[in-house]
Amino acid sequence: MISRRQFLGGMAAAAWQARPFSPAFPAAPGLPAVHVDAGRLRARIEALSAFGRPVGGTFAAGVSRTAYSDADVAGRAYVMGQMRAAGLQPRIDPAGNIFARRDGASSTLPPILFGSHIDSVPNGGNFDGDLGSLSALGALEALAAAGARTRHPLEMVVWAHEESFAFGRGLACSRIAAGEVTRADMDEVWNGMRRGDAIRKIGGDPDRIFEARRPKGSHHCYLELHIEQGGTLERGGVPVGVVEGIVAIDRYEATVTGVANHSGTTPIADRHDALLAASHLTIAVRDAAARIPGRQVATVGRIEVTPNSANVIPGLAQLSVELRDLDPGKLVAMMDEIRVRAREIGSTTGTTIEFRELARAAPAAATPEVQTAIERAAESLGLHSTRLPSGAGHDAQMMALLGPMGMIFVPSVGGISHSPKELTRWEDCARGADVLLHTVLEIDRA
Amino acid sequence: MISRRQFLGGMAAAAWQARPFSPAFPAAPGLPAVHVDAGRLRARIEALSAFGRPVGGTFAAGVSRTAYSDADVAGRAYVMGQMRAAGLQPRIDPAGNIFARRDGASSTLPPILFGSHIDSVPNGGNFDGDLGSLSALGALEALAAAGARTRHPLEMVVWAHEESFAFGRGLACSRIAAGEVTRADMDEVWNGMRRGDAIRKIGGDPDRIFEARRPKGSHHCYLELHIEQGGTLERGGVPVGVVEGIVAIDRYEATVTGVANHSGTTPIADRHDALLAASHLTIAVRDAAARIPGRQVATVGRIEVTPNSANVIPGLAQLSVELRDLDPGKLVAMMDEIRVRAREIGSTTGTTIEFRELARAAPAAATPEVQTAIERAAESLGLHSTRLPSGAGHDAQMMALLGPMGMIFVPSVGGISHSPKELTRWEDCARGADVLLHTVLEIDRA
Repeated sequence: MISRRQFLGGMAAAAWQARPFSPAFPAAPGLPAVHVDAGRLRARIEALSAFGRPVGGTFAAGVSRTAYSDADVAGRAYVMGQMRAAGLQPRIDPAGNIFARRDGASSTLPPILFGSHIDSVPNGGNFDGDLGSLSALGALEALAAAGARTRHPLEMVVWAHEESFAFGRGLACSRIAAGEVTRADMDEVWNGMRRGDAIRKIGGDPDRIFEARRPKGSHHCYLELHIEQGGTLERGGVPVGVVEGIVAIDRYEATVTGVANHSGTTPIADRHDALLAASHLTIAVRDAAARIPGRQVATVGRIEVTPNSANVIPGLAQLSVELRDLDPGKLVAMMDEIRVRAREIGSTTGTTIEFRELARAAPAAATPEVQTAIERAAESLGLHSTRLPSGAGHDAQMMALLGPMGMIFVPSVGGISHSPKELTRWEDCARGADVLLHTVLEIDRA
Repeated sequence: MISRRQFLGGMAAAAWQARPFSPAFPAAPGLPAVHVDAGRLRARIEALSAFGRPVGGTFAAGVSRTAYSDADVAGRAYVMGQMRAAGLQPRIDPAGNIFARRDGASSTLPPILFGSHIDSVPNGGNFDGDLGSLSALGALEALAAAGARTRHPLEMVVWAHEESFAFGRGLACSRIAAGEVTRADMDEVWNGMRRGDAIRKIGGDPDRIFEARRPKGSHHCYLELHIEQGGTLERGGVPVGVVEGIVAIDRYEATVTGVANHSGTTPIADRHDALLAASHLTIAVRDAAARIPGRQVATVGRIEVTPNSANVIPGLAQLSVELRDLDPGKLVAMMDEIRVRAREIGSTTGTTIEFRELARAAPAAATPEVQTAIERAAESLGLHSTRLPSGAGHDAQMMALLGPMGMIFVPSVGGISHSPKELTRWEDCARGADVLLHTVLEIDRA
């Protein structure tokens, strides 16, 4: 939780909220003059979708642009090309994050930072991350086109490696920027790739990794536009979501050890079937979230079975267990229940089940003053907004460690995300980009 | 089922059973003169284990010598080298099976055929197949050393591609020898490899694949020594098993289709989780076998989940479903029950579950007269024997399509197989090899 005092270096929040709409950007009421170019935003999202698209597919086929893949490298090159074409000078920090800056009227004020990511999950969609990254570019471009100058410098960012796929972790490079990195992290190995080499592949420099850390207060505020990835906004017919905070996420790996044996010669009663035990555990994980009221979720998204052959009783199964809620205490209680069930399952199936903690991400509250600024920006654009939590993790939660933070959500059709079916209507994309731009202006004025 | 009339081209079974122990191989009662060299058999099993052994492992680390792998090619070259050293001339048929022949006194009688395979499951053991193949070689060698000549020609075989891993099927090359092959089979693709190219890799010739078919009656009888792979013999303290028949095996692929979605933003109640449904199905498959009396088994040994990422609700799961019993009608009843449960599971989890039939192998009865010959051979060696079914599929069931067939089992420690822990004691290996040799002699005399 970022205190009000931290925000704006102690500037009185009341004064910040009371400032009228800036005369520097005159507009008729409800019709501000500056807009992100909606057609160009769409064209860029469509162009970016080609990097990591399934062979022979269309935009609707989704994308597999996992962090550090060749498609990721190509997609990043495309975005940097677009940044250069817009007159920006992209630079890659030692962690692989892409930054570009636009000067403000003041050379002493810290920048307002905004952006998102462009890596995807395997077989993911074309809006998660891409919308926020390309809207950040669109916002800078709109200001340049209007010849407008903000007080604060503005800085856009495209975070590297946001999704939890590569190295079994996410928010990886914003985490480095937030200061959470050790030399040993660069030696992690995943799929035969060393993490330092992966970062080097996308233009980072693992030898100078500590220089990617950003000190507290090095930016004035962090903003991120993102698709909701849930169905709340669409169901409510609300175009803009103001994020209250990002849920805590606890992630474990469960290892189920049985005995591999011949599927034809081993009686059912004599088996130690790791997949059978893993199946009971998968149901137990779901039940731990389902049997109590609340918005908590629990997911087994990944399973690897050894030897994974039709005629061999599985001897080993490894599963991901992921728990999310705004209340970290609830996650602990759910995991306690899962452990109890795992002992029962191990006993009845003749297997052993062990859990390894992979990551525990604390919840991150969005700064109240930034939430208000987003609401004012939406209002100035004539758009309804509503407050809601984020069930998904975002780089914004790492930036919450360094200073004020806020997030803008736009509706996801059907609440579907991390899927080729992920869709945000183009008019909602444009609205979100404009809310981002005008929130930047609101905050700049404050 | 092979009729008694088919056996031995109509020779009266009563006469065949009544023949006394052959004077051509004189021995004190219970102490026959010819033996397979037990030390050489062990040395060869140990030497063969090096091909496909995990890096840095010992014999106890097991083996991954899957069909058509480089290790398989190397292992086959080793065995052919040993065959040549024993004075045999190995030839590879167009399906990739290795044969070698030793002449008999008669040039008109068909050969007695015996052998096994040397390919393994991934992460398998060093006795499954290897024992029967190298004992066949040891038996021919023992006869040569004794300067003995049988009436029938003798032919050993090392079948290619026995295990159900490559191309999702097993008994693949004995099936071709049994006549079950089409030109289109050579165009199957698995792991990027065309089946014709795979067969070519091990020295076969897919262009002449039909020449690998063996006509009915082209051999006098087929015999196979194999480890039990179950615990019946060891529990009973019996060194020799006489196989009554090989169970029917029905194999299906289940496809569970849900909706991939973000694990953080999709409420539990709104999910269509393919892995959750697959977990219920895995339990239902097990229950279909467990809830009725009998020796039937049902196994989910393989599962593939898409996209298989910790933060994505699985949208797709594909599972193997395998059912085995001597009674094919029981398999149909079990599958009916599984289909009913699958519809219920699909309904409660918001997924659809479909089954595709991959293979249905009929049961194969061992020829009664051959069972008797095995019992007599064991008895002549002073070894107890017992009759039992084979829960595992074997190349012998394909040979049952062509003529008389019998199988000899030896004990598996702990009933463990298809695992590095697979073990048959060296003395039991030697006993099995001698029973094979003396069964050949019993049958030759008949």
